Amino acid sequence: MSGAAGLRVVVIGGVAAGMSAASQAKRRMPEAEVIVLERGPFISYGACGMPYNLADPTRDMEDLVVLSPEHARTKRGIDVRLRHEVRSIDVAEKTVRVRDLDAGREETLAWDRLVIATGARPVVPPIPGRDLPGVFLLRELTHGVAIDRFVAERSPKKAVLVGGGYIGLEMAEGLRERGLEVHVVEMRDRVAAGFAAEPAAIAEKALARHGVTLSLGTRVESIEPSNGGLRVRTDHGAFDADLVLLSVGIRPNRELAEAAGIALGETGAIAVDDAQRTNVEHVFAAGDCAEARHRVTGKPAYVPLGPTANKQGKIAGANAVGADERFAGIVGTAAFKVFDVELARTGLTLEEAERAGFSAFESGSEHGTRGHGYPGGGRLHTTLVVEHRTGRLLGAQLAGDEGAAARVNVYAAALAAGATVHDIEGYDLAYAPPFAPVYDPILIAATVARKALDGRG
Amino acid sequence: MSGAAGLRVVVIGGVAAGMSAASQAKRRMPEAEVIVLERGPFISYGACGMPYNLADPTRDMEDLVVLSPEHARTKRGIDVRLRHEVRSIDVAEKTVRVRDLDAGREETLAWDRLVIATGARPVVPPIPGRDLPGVFLLRELTHGVAIDRFVAERSPKKAVLVGGGYIGLEMAEGLRERGLEVHVVEMRDRVAAGFAAEPAAIAEKALARHGVTLSLGTRVESIEPSNGGLRVRTDHGAFDADLVLLSVGIRPNRELAEAAGIALGETGAIAVDDAQRTNVEHVFAAGDCAEARHRVTGKPAYVPLGPTANKQGKIAGANAVGADERFAGIVGTAAFKVFDVELARTGLTLEEAERAGFSAFESGSEHGTRGHGYPGGGRLHTTLVVEHRTGRLLGAQLAGDEGAAARVNVYAAALAAGATVHDIEGYDLAYAPPFAPVYDPILIAATVARKALDGRG
Repeated sequence: MSGAAGLRVVVIGGVAAGMSAASQAKRRMPEAEVIVLERGPFISYGACGMPYNLADPTRDMEDLVVLSPEHARTKRGIDVRLRHEVRSIDVAEKTVRVRDLDAGREETLAWDRLVIATGARPVVPPIPGRDLPGVFLLRELTHGVAIDRFVAERSPKKAVLVGGGYIGLEMAEGLRERGLEVHVVEMRDRVAAGFAAEPAAIAEKALARHGVTLSLGTRVESIEPSNGGLRVRTDHGAFDADLVLLSVGIRPNRELAEAAGIALGETGAIAVDDAQRTNVEHVFAAGDCAEARHRVTGKPAYVPLGPTANKQGKIAGANAVGADERFAGIVGTAAFKVFDVELARTGLTLEEAERAGFSAFESGSEHGTRGHGYPGGGRLHTTLVVEHRTGRLLGAQLAGDEGAAARVNVYAAALAAGATVHDIEGYDLAYAPPFAPVYDPILIAATVARKALDGRG
Repeated sequence: MSGAAGLRVVVIGGVAAGMSAASQAKRRMPEAEVIVLERGPFISYGACGMPYNLADPTRDMEDLVVLSPEHARTKRGIDVRLRHEVRSIDVAEKTVRVRDLDAGREETLAWDRLVIATGARPVVPPIPGRDLPGVFLLRELTHGVAIDRFVAERSPKKAVLVGGGYIGLEMAEGLRERGLEVHVVEMRDRVAAGFAAEPAAIAEKALARHGVTLSLGTRVESIEPSNGGLRVRTDHGAFDADLVLLSVGIRPNRELAEAAGIALGETGAIAVDDAQRTNVEHVFAAGDCAEARHRVTGKPAYVPLGPTANKQGKIAGANAVGADERFAGIVGTAAFKVFDVELARTGLTLEEAERAGFSAFESGSEHGTRGHGYPGGGRLHTTLVVEHRTGRLLGAQLAGDEGAAARVNVYAAALAAGATVHDIEGYDLAYAPPFAPVYDPILIAATVARKALDGRG
């Protein structure tokens, strides 16, 4: 095809990155033809909201859809095709082979620009019984709908959650709120992967306070039917369950790209530059199927999170129709709550820092969250990861009663600026008794780290 | 005196800056003699907590004392002398003339190092009736105690608050909580000095929702006794009151320094360098009596706030005993709440920016504070002040239902780094439905400002 008027942009995947790409392409070039091919029955939903939605039986899981296909078609002029699965990409011919799952037909669709936004899928541990009824994953909205329906219709009494990461912990709260007994099984020696020991311990205490039991250092070996329910066998005993959730991690949906000869990065996700271009001309990738440059290491990383997917998608869509936008990169900022505590992290953990070649140390501190004598509030623990020689901040993890998610963004800004703990100590932060003590926990944490640095320097 | 062992540090003023200085000097040099001369009956209190404390009749105002004189003496080895008023400083002789207000005696006290931490005092408008019983100021803990007692013992029904700044608005809430009818009289055309029109309007709506009435553009002319109470006459009518609060600003207590020949800055407060040194050798100043370097303008400014007082005091105390600490400067970050809304600001307002010689514009945006479909939360309005040519952030003001005080610190970090709105747009901020939408209001505000910049650029 020649000429902008006839430009066809095909987007594979219609969730965060895909719909951001499609919307941006159409907005920048209204005359372009923008087609979204989505394998599932939904587009544009806030998957991160599923555990919180589940907690409240009065909320419909489909409320998490931000943009309906009808709205996308009529208001945004995007040709959204649901239940259309792309089977292959031909980068030489500039086509995709796509299957209409309902009609059972396949066709070849030509494109001028292709945006791959195929997302990620849950890792399924290769254990017997993983496909039994009552065993769930949680990634796509269809998963959330299935769990919600199962809870409503079958009134399960006991849940075993395999994996104590973000999803596992959020679901522990969600299912507890729905009245289930919840047991979490985690292979590692603590929950909350990506967090240091102290913040993980704060999450573990919150689970215990809310009646969630926990097996650490425990590996699931099989799931079996048992008395009309399920029995989860581990290397440290067996647990009865009516509902089992497997949430042990996710991996990028890269196979379509890989089969088409599009380069993957070292992380195993699709390699992109900061314009979201793959190694193949006119082919872009964005979101959970792609890498992103980590601003602390300067190297590609795989940290699949919603904001990154939205931003990368927007940039891919813009650049697909001729813009020259650049993605600023990530620092891996994330937050979640589990019952009455908040956890948040940004940058590198000590382990990640050392793996990236930094000589670094961890500095921990704990402080109150409000002004002297102001009622309410609580404690906040901060772990800073700091480069030895320079004092440069490499990462921060926060956990406590309030203010973790809010404060982590200050560290994200500090990481973007390459700030040292000495720089952070000099930040002029707000003090007001309802919100913070006169020395904000951020300043306390920086001072504690700077003193450790001076002591070691 | 010669030799560190005999070094005597005299600190004038025993609240935030003074006690920070004294504590730091004694910690760094335990053999030094550290004397604090405090005119009032209290030291080391969190004055900012007074309006919030007042709201709750079960809380004792004196709970705001962080460190008792006994504790300072016995645990920290500081010679705290309450109700000791310094009458003059002799920098040539290195002495102060001090009056013991209870004993009625004066003496001359020698010092090797002097830290001036005399604080600030409320501006009292020169109107007839300003000294009548029932007319209050709010600055020192004694003021808070007096108001608390008056409310408890006299059960006033109506309050008129003259001045709609931080203190006036916080006190509107505090007195309303204690059951009073509250009317605020403000000379300017909006409340919340230092905020743009939109955040001020959000505060004004909160007042109205909570039954506080408001006269803008109104000047108080006199206060008169009336039917056992008071009558506040203005250029737009008269208002009955049982309690009147005058809170129209503060000014530095600089007279002692001025009379001793210590240089004042252009702002009228005591001039200091970043080591908190005045122009006189061995004489330091810190806190609300002193200037601070504003990091956005690079020039001295007078923005008297608690965190600055604490930090400057600490540095003055350290340097008084031979350290070489430097104050990083301020960006003027402040936050407060009025009923159910939060207001926060950092950096320069548009007016301040223009006065400082910047060519700048204001960019406003409003956004939800939580994830799609997550219950609760609310709206947050952001005003950014941005330099025209460069896109550099010069200031930010936030107002709304939640998250203003938390988010302002991200802008404070951005100001410290000299970030542009384009830089801020690239921040990797936390997304989790309970805490923030996928595009945090900070990112939305930066994008809106960047687009305005591009449009004008």
